[in-house]
Amino acid sequence: MPQGVPTAIPDDGLTTRQRRNMPVLAVHTGDGKGKSTAAFGMAMRAWNAGMRVAVFQFVKSAKWRVGEESALTALGEIHESTGQGGPVQWHKMGQGWSWLRANSDAAEDHAEAARAGWAEIARRLAAAEHDFYVLDEFTYPLHWGWIDTDDVVTALRERPGRQHVVITGRRAPQALLDSADLVTEMHKIAHPMDAGRKGQKGIEW
Amino acid sequence: MPQGVPTAIPDDGLTTRQRRNMPVLAVHTGDGKGKSTAAFGMAMRAWNAGMRVAVFQFVKSAKWRVGEESALTALGEIHESTGQGGPVQWHKMGQGWSWLRANSDAAEDHAEAARAGWAEIARRLAAAEHDFYVLDEFTYPLHWGWIDTDDVVTALRERPGRQHVVITGRRAPQALLDSADLVTEMHKIAHPMDAGRKGQKGIEW
Repeated sequence: MPQGVPTAIPDDGLTTRQRRNMPVLAVHTGDGKGKSTAAFGMAMRAWNAGMRVAVFQFVKSAKWRVGEESALTALGEIHESTGQGGPVQWHKMGQGWSWLRANSDAAEDHAEAARAGWAEIARRLAAAEHDFYVLDEFTYPLHWGWIDTDDVVTALRERPGRQHVVITGRRAPQALLDSADLVTEMHKIAHPMDAGRKGQKGIEW
Repeated sequence: MPQGVPTAIPDDGLTTRQRRNMPVLAVHTGDGKGKSTAAFGMAMRAWNAGMRVAVFQFVKSAKWRVGEESALTALGEIHESTGQGGPVQWHKMGQGWSWLRANSDAAEDHAEAARAGWAEIARRLAAAEHDFYVLDEFTYPLHWGWIDTDDVVTALRERPGRQHVVITGRRAPQALLDSADLVTEMHKIAHPMDAGRKGQKGIEW
């Protein structure tokens, strides 16, 4: 738990308030569990702070995050009806991205779909459309070379305003890690799978 | 992300379904961020599965989890009004535990308050009152010897039914780790604090 005491004061000419209000780029990587779950926990916190939350799932199947999607969407509906928290958007590559109408072709080609997703996110970042982005499993299209990591790093570095971004997934490219403010590696020590258990609803998804 | 394929099939005489439905004890430890946040993300998922969620915060100050508390409580209210998801309870040691009326003395003595919290949790586990427990920062009273780790391990091992428990915090005792089904270590690679930033609302709390 952060104690609120920085370990060093940088010589960057900024006030504490200016530094405090800087946008955060966080990467959750490693082979352990909790990378996405922690990102969605952060999204819950961002919702509470009234931020405009947007989730982009870079996965082929929407099977694994139904619990988080349902809960965060329910929080978004609270915002719509009562004004509490912030609005929530949830977009899935596996279903051809929700902002696209005619998406069947893009959904067939995963590399193309990933690039279409990133192009839209880059557009939204430039327009400062959200306050808190979760790019779930986004490291994979970077690792596989479907999306150029340098383009992503540049777009993130040049994003205007105070937009927070959390990127999850294994094998995060080094250039992405180098540009992040916060990198956490989730390391597996023990897992029920090792004891021959399969996942169960409410725990694994 | 689990692929649903166990790496070994144990010779325990159980069917896959029996194994799948076994209660999970998870521990999130290490010096990195995301231990509690991932636990609350899991709680969000458990809520969606209709589980009865209960959070017990073993911290002196309630400052750090207000976002998660507010969001999970909002989800609990959705359950109350629409039946979606499950009920949510949130208890804080820092305020003398919400099930106690006259709690000022216990709140003064942190060791005593921690023991009172654990006694209540042990009672609820024995009575199977909840389906999903978050014992946030519970490793500290164990590490400091305020609560006996063997008692905890025994109570958890003997808990009836299908009650899932997630314990978070640094310095988890080895006996607890040995008894867990799932241990994830969050390892800090980079953190904004290192660059002299202080925490900000919606990101750090």
